[in-house]
Amino acid sequence: MAEKRIAVLASGRGTNLQSVIDGIKNGNINNAVLQLVVSDNERAYALERAMANGIEALWINPRTFKGSEDYNDAILEALRKRRIDLVVLAGYMKILSAAFVRAYRDAIINIHPSLIPSFCGSGYYGERVHREVLEYGVKVTGATVHFVDEGTDTGPIILQQAVEVLPEDTVDSLAKRVLRIEHILLPRAVDLYCRGCLRKEERRVIIEAN
Amino acid sequence: MAEKRIAVLASGRGTNLQSVIDGIKNGNINNAVLQLVVSDNERAYALERAMANGIEALWINPRTFKGSEDYNDAILEALRKRRIDLVVLAGYMKILSAAFVRAYRDAIINIHPSLIPSFCGSGYYGERVHREVLEYGVKVTGATVHFVDEGTDTGPIILQQAVEVLPEDTVDSLAKRVLRIEHILLPRAVDLYCRGCLRKEERRVIIEAN
Repeated sequence: MAEKRIAVLASGRGTNLQSVIDGIKNGNINNAVLQLVVSDNERAYALERAMANGIEALWINPRTFKGSEDYNDAILEALRKRRIDLVVLAGYMKILSAAFVRAYRDAIINIHPSLIPSFCGSGYYGERVHREVLEYGVKVTGATVHFVDEGTDTGPIILQQAVEVLPEDTVDSLAKRVLRIEHILLPRAVDLYCRGCLRKEERRVIIEAN
Repeated sequence: MAEKRIAVLASGRGTNLQSVIDGIKNGNINNAVLQLVVSDNERAYALERAMANGIEALWINPRTFKGSEDYNDAILEALRKRRIDLVVLAGYMKILSAAFVRAYRDAIINIHPSLIPSFCGSGYYGERVHREVLEYGVKVTGATVHFVDEGTDTGPIILQQAVEVLPEDTVDSLAKRVLRIEHILLPRAVDLYCRGCLRKEERRVIIEAN
C-alpha cells in the first residue's frame, strides 16, 4: 500500500501536531509522510514546529477570502495540489465547509478532549470543555479521536480513552492529564488509518489487524 | 451517627437490590439498615429477594391510584411511616413526582448504566442504553450513581466508572459487563451516604473520609 500523505490543520500551539511528528519519527506511525501543515493563524506555533521539522508550513489568511466556503476551497486546493490523503485536525478552530467534508469523506480525523457524546458540539472547545466537565461534576472524562462528518463532533469514533476526574482537579490540571491521553490516541489513530486498519460498519469504526 | 434506614424501589429482577443486601451483610455498607423494598410490579423478583432476606416487601399497585402524583404520595407515606432516610432506585421504572423528589432532596440515589451525561434522559433505560451505545459506536461506556433531582438522570453524580466497549460486544455482553460495575458502585455509594461521607458543592459531590 502506498504511503499516506498527511496534512495537519492547526490554529494554535500544535502539541497534537507534535505528537504526529514524533509518532512518524519514532516509528509509532507507519506508512505515512507528513507533507503539509496549514494554519489560519499566522502566529500559530504549529507553523514553527512544521518548519523546525522540515515540513511545508502554509498560512492561509482567512481575511483574504470572501467567506468560509471560499476559504475552505482554498485549503482544499492546497491539499489537492499536494495529493493529500488524510487531513488531521489538531486544535484547528475553524469549521470545515460541507464541500471540504465531502471531498475528504472518512479521511479527516479530529481529536476532542472529552468522551463524545458528552461535552461536545458547537461551542465546546479548549478549556471550555474541561470547565463544563468540572462544573457538571462528572467523575470520568477522557479523549476521543473521530472521523469528521458534517456535524460538530458527531462523526464515527475511532478511539476513546477514559480519564478520571480527581477531587482536587482544576481546569488546568485536568486539561493537562487529558492532553497526555490525546497525544497517545491521535498518533495511534493516524497509524491505524495509514496502515489501512480502519473499517466502518454503519457508525461503528472497526479496527482490524493488518 | 444514627443508622440510616434505607428503602429500595425496584420494578424488576432486583440484582442491584441484591448488591445492597449483600453489601450490608458482608460489611461493605456500614451504618445502614435495609428496612423496606417497594415495587410497582406485583411480580418483581425484587420482592422475592426482600422476603427471602427478611426485609419487608411492599407491592403498591399503581392501578389503584388516580394518577402518578397520588401514587407517589402513597409511596411517600409508606416511607415516612417507616422513617426512611435514604431511597435507592434499583431498576425502578416509574418517574418520581416533584413532591417525592422535594421530600427526599439529596436522599434519593439512582444507578444508570452509562457515563452520564451520555446515553441518559427520558427513554434511556435498560437494554435501550446499551443498544444506543453500540449503534453510536463509542469505545467507552460505564455506569453512574447519582442523586435524583427533578430531571431525568440530571442529578449530581456520586460515582462513575468506565467500561470498555469491545469489538465483539452485543447488547447482552455489554449489559452484563456494565452490570458488574453497577454492583460495585451502588453499594459503595450507599455506604458513603450512610457514613456521611458525601458533601455537595454546587453540582459536584465531594467524597470525604469520615
